[in-house]
Amino acid sequence: MASQGEAHPYVPHDLKLPGFVPLFLSQSEIVGVYGISSLLVVVFMWIFSGFVPKLSKTDRVLMCWWIFTGLTHMVLEGYFVFTPDFYQKTTPVYLAEVWKEYSKGDSRYVGRDAAVVSVEGVTAVIEGPACLLAVYAIATKKSYRHVLQLSICLGQLYGTAIYFITAILEGDNFSTSPFYYYAYYVFANHFWVWIPSLIVIHCWKKICAAVNVHEQKTKTR
Amino acid sequence: MASQGEAHPYVPHDLKLPGFVPLFLSQSEIVGVYGISSLLVVVFMWIFSGFVPKLSKTDRVLMCWWIFTGLTHMVLEGYFVFTPDFYQKTTPVYLAEVWKEYSKGDSRYVGRDAAVVSVEGVTAVIEGPACLLAVYAIATKKSYRHVLQLSICLGQLYGTAIYFITAILEGDNFSTSPFYYYAYYVFANHFWVWIPSLIVIHCWKKICAAVNVHEQKTKTR
Repeated sequence: MASQGEAHPYVPHDLKLPGFVPLFLSQSEIVGVYGISSLLVVVFMWIFSGFVPKLSKTDRVLMCWWIFTGLTHMVLEGYFVFTPDFYQKTTPVYLAEVWKEYSKGDSRYVGRDAAVVSVEGVTAVIEGPACLLAVYAIATKKSYRHVLQLSICLGQLYGTAIYFITAILEGDNFSTSPFYYYAYYVFANHFWVWIPSLIVIHCWKKICAAVNVHEQKTKTR
Repeated sequence: MASQGEAHPYVPHDLKLPGFVPLFLSQSEIVGVYGISSLLVVVFMWIFSGFVPKLSKTDRVLMCWWIFTGLTHMVLEGYFVFTPDFYQKTTPVYLAEVWKEYSKGDSRYVGRDAAVVSVEGVTAVIEGPACLLAVYAIATKKSYRHVLQLSICLGQLYGTAIYFITAILEGDNFSTSPFYYYAYYVFANHFWVWIPSLIVIHCWKKICAAVNVHEQKTKTR
């Protein structure tokens, strides 16, 4: 039987996980499905954005990023937020397997740490849908597209900051091994540090340029 | 002697606070000093902003808000972040007294909850100085003033969201009494919900209007 009570692979070992069911899928299956489906989504968005008139390459790349990160927030992180018992599933549920696997890099997920659940909640419920709105706003050149993208990025950066700082304050000892620490906790998350940072700089410049022109115009009237 | 070991007024009662020293100052002294010094800062900024040419009343009110919230973040919250042993001070230190008093509304402060320390860390170190920059940016009409104010407000809203959500997830039982719950935890924090929300709306509109004009101009060229 799958259910082995308290036996689990996570650190700290005394973490209580009643009804924990070991993983059904292998690491390559879990990462492979996420990688391939993300690639399909990005390729679809790249092709689709090619049909939208007057879009720069930067905007097309941004649309690919926003659809990828938005679906990750809503589907993956949304499942985590609203499924506290994901580690007790007795049949293979892909999204539950993702979080059981990821928890090897950060057991605060399976242990339902309040800071992690709060950050993931804001990310899944507010930022996820906002990312899809960003795709629409870029495609239709809405005047709010820069400030919307900047706002989402600041949220992602704030969330990532809280995520790492709380871990450090609590001893930074939630990984099954250095491999999972660097592969999941560090590597998987680093994209949500430098990509939002670049987009913040990009949008900040766009906004300042627009305000500058707007005010020059008002002055010269 | 002031030191009474583990005896403290906070909830949960089993919270371990070795070397806890009871409050020296009364509630009215602590709140009074904060209220009067905040009032002085705001009055000073209102008068000072009157000498800055071509500032709207809205901008003058915003400068008063930013100097008040910026100094609160840097001085009060900064002290909390970098003084983990504030509850052990054997002489009356005003800033230590503030946090011993506030902890009656939320014992996660005196208990050094990781989520609270992380949020306060980001607030004190990043948002505090950014608030002072906002005062300068408004006074000198910098083109980045709207996007800067919006960014700080989003940070304040994100921080407040994490602050309340983590408390709810952990049982929302950190107050000495309903009075402290509503006076400190709810009332004192609610300003950092509706004021940043209003400023976000204000700045969002300003930015969109500028982008709109900028792009209309580019189109008609």
